[in-house]
Amino acid sequence: VYDKREYCNWVEVAGGGVGSLNACFLAKRNFQVDVYEAREDIRVANFARGRSINLALSYRGRQALKAIGLEDQIISQGVPMRARMIHFLSGRKSAIPYGTKSQYILSISRENLNKDLLNAVEKHPNVKVHFGHRLEKCSLEEGMITVLGSDKVPKDITYDLIVGCDGAYSTVRNHLMKKPCFDYSQQYIPHGYMELTIPSKNGDYAMEPNYLHIWPRNTFMMIALPNMNKSFTCTLFMPFEEFEKLLTGNDVLGFFQKYFPDSIPLIGEKALVQDFFLLPAQPMISIKCSSFHFKTHCVLMGDAAHAIVPFFGQGMNAGFEDCLVFDELMGKFNDDISTCLPEFSRFRIPDDHAISDLSMYNYIEMRAHVNSRWFIFQKNIERFLHAIMPSTFIPLYTMVTFSRIRYHEAMLRWHWQKKVINRGLFIFASLIAIGSSYLLLHYMPLERIPYFISQ
Amino acid sequence: VYDKREYCNWVEVAGGGVGSLNACFLAKRNFQVDVYEAREDIRVANFARGRSINLALSYRGRQALKAIGLEDQIISQGVPMRARMIHFLSGRKSAIPYGTKSQYILSISRENLNKDLLNAVEKHPNVKVHFGHRLEKCSLEEGMITVLGSDKVPKDITYDLIVGCDGAYSTVRNHLMKKPCFDYSQQYIPHGYMELTIPSKNGDYAMEPNYLHIWPRNTFMMIALPNMNKSFTCTLFMPFEEFEKLLTGNDVLGFFQKYFPDSIPLIGEKALVQDFFLLPAQPMISIKCSSFHFKTHCVLMGDAAHAIVPFFGQGMNAGFEDCLVFDELMGKFNDDISTCLPEFSRFRIPDDHAISDLSMYNYIEMRAHVNSRWFIFQKNIERFLHAIMPSTFIPLYTMVTFSRIRYHEAMLRWHWQKKVINRGLFIFASLIAIGSSYLLLHYMPLERIPYFISQ
Repeated sequence: VYDKREYCNWVEVAGGGVGSLNACFLAKRNFQVDVYEAREDIRVANFARGRSINLALSYRGRQALKAIGLEDQIISQGVPMRARMIHFLSGRKSAIPYGTKSQYILSISRENLNKDLLNAVEKHPNVKVHFGHRLEKCSLEEGMITVLGSDKVPKDITYDLIVGCDGAYSTVRNHLMKKPCFDYSQQYIPHGYMELTIPSKNGDYAMEPNYLHIWPRNTFMMIALPNMNKSFTCTLFMPFEEFEKLLTGNDVLGFFQKYFPDSIPLIGEKALVQDFFLLPAQPMISIKCSSFHFKTHCVLMGDAAHAIVPFFGQGMNAGFEDCLVFDELMGKFNDDISTCLPEFSRFRIPDDHAISDLSMYNYIEMRAHVNSRWFIFQKNIERFLHAIMPSTFIPLYTMVTFSRIRYHEAMLRWHWQKKVINRGLFIFASLIAIGSSYLLLHYMPLERIPYFISQ
Repeated sequence: VYDKREYCNWVEVAGGGVGSLNACFLAKRNFQVDVYEAREDIRVANFARGRSINLALSYRGRQALKAIGLEDQIISQGVPMRARMIHFLSGRKSAIPYGTKSQYILSISRENLNKDLLNAVEKHPNVKVHFGHRLEKCSLEEGMITVLGSDKVPKDITYDLIVGCDGAYSTVRNHLMKKPCFDYSQQYIPHGYMELTIPSKNGDYAMEPNYLHIWPRNTFMMIALPNMNKSFTCTLFMPFEEFEKLLTGNDVLGFFQKYFPDSIPLIGEKALVQDFFLLPAQPMISIKCSSFHFKTHCVLMGDAAHAIVPFFGQGMNAGFEDCLVFDELMGKFNDDISTCLPEFSRFRIPDDHAISDLSMYNYIEMRAHVNSRWFIFQKNIERFLHAIMPSTFIPLYTMVTFSRIRYHEAMLRWHWQKKVINRGLFIFASLIAIGSSYLLLHYMPLERIPYFISQ
């Protein structure tokens, strides 16, 4: 059935390059791949600034890039971030490492990544990229798509497999939704985000470069990621209702003076006000669905299958790992699509749902817990336990970011580890309490006890 | 702004008559209402058998019908059901009352109800019903709809308010979904349903008529509701994978002989096999969304706003109560739509989400708990407590079915009552244990205790 090896692969490059990456994987397996991209070629067109949050590339994304031979090229253009740098309101700063000394995540440019992936795609003679082609309709039963190119004449084309990598607002998924027994949920969080810039200072980074800077302020927060050109991209996350209270330049400056005073000289008063009102705050959506495939005709990957909130830095990494997992299954089942598609849904959905939940959890942790003593104390205990029992105890962040432990297993393991730590701390505290009472009663003259207690 | 009083009200009659009912409410408030219905007039067309589960009309639905003066007419065509009649595998039957002696739910025909509602709508000179008009598009920002009538020419019409009562697969809601910050979830349950018929026997009901008959069998169940023509409509609820195992007439008969032996002579072997393969098992979907309105242009009601699973018999009742609540708000705010719409979302969403959750809970209770001694014991305790403290303790079923206590308050109260009962039972059991030990130690000769314990 699949002798034709003519596949259609849907791409939304702005969605994180999942489509291009997957086209490379399919091309390596000798399939004929057509890639349709709604936008013009970002390498030639004057690309409008997208609604992007900085990308943090970690182990899962790197393993996928490695499999298509692109890892070294991509990481050479990234800035390593080895720790969180917490900016307290007082101006004090404190670093909390992400993992061991050799572990780091990479701040990379979404635009460069997408361009490099497109270049990689076009090296394959069996892939054709059609820019400026919008998906009008999908007839999933027949594997037929209707696309609209620049000539505005709808074209019907039939393929053996439709791969929907067309992002959070996926058209392919919208067609899947009409099929029976397709579960779906979309949830907007109350926060919006806005991007600001800290330019370079005297030709160098204005802050310590190898950190992900965080200004946690409980109900809202700001982060900053380093760029190759020595600037930082800041992202302010805040409830929409708070954004709506800031109506004038003075409101904005007053707000920053109150909550992020150290950032004002870095961003610059004028640029801050200008950038703040350039674009409205953008919404963030969390999407889950099940299953990811339809019969043997269609499969979803990346944000189209699971748009997640950005607070674990795993959106692109999870999407890239989708492609890697799919490729591994194709290898295991000898390119048999009819086995691979249901297996991909069965295997991958628990993991993508888990990273969605974990990202939602981190949405609270990052802005509210990260600046508490208890958080830092826990992180230190985790680091200590991991150092003495590296394979038994692995911090959640390490499992998610620096390993390919399945997301849902990482989540289960994390719950178990938390329980063990809390019990351990309880027993430890009880022993100390018992021990000190014992010492008190044995070594303190009896007549002093009433006096001691009355103190 | 609303002087024109020209409103567009979307109806899906097969969706339960919510659209017709709401048109009556709006007409009574002197609005101009256009009702668009995709199907032909069910009163004249040869109506194909719909995908319907029998309707159980209870207090909320009746109160809504009462407000438009239709209650008596509708209930005169219903069959009262005063209790569940549990059919055990052994053939034994046992009745569990729904409430007090005077309380009952009504088995009514969806078709008759919809016809009566349409007749009521057409009595209002300010309502016009357009049959055979399909909604093509909704431009919510402009309050414009595009409809396609029998002439197949799309017509654009602008209204002050678009009311989407177009059922679980609502087109209006699909347009709302594209608006920012619209939360949505759809979930199919693993069970499907299938309708069968128990015909009348010698001109009379073949079973006791004033009951909702239940055959609970843990992972699946069958129910039967009486019709006015002395027949019963049975509905078999079962996981799709179980349906798929029954491929031949003999499979079906074997299955019924094993699990519902007493129903075979009532349905008839031949009819059973014939009806079983007439239509495939139908899926059931649970839909939640938020909010129900968009600016001052659009609002959702009924299944369009909250499709729920049918296990609490509240689908139509909740939809009808939507209309009643909206009418109450219109009264409170002097027909000011711009105040009513956000207030309707704020007030009604917690209730519709609660009845959705409660229906999902009953999906397990009805098929798995209803035949346990513990369930019957609990129901008896509930009835006893309600009898001695009628306003303090109200069973969940009574709150949902025989009152207009807000659904979400009923749910909270139920949780609280369960806690109190369990504590009460625990204390009661402890007192008995303490009391009997006391008696044992005081009145039993000491030398007999070791002997007694060794027994």
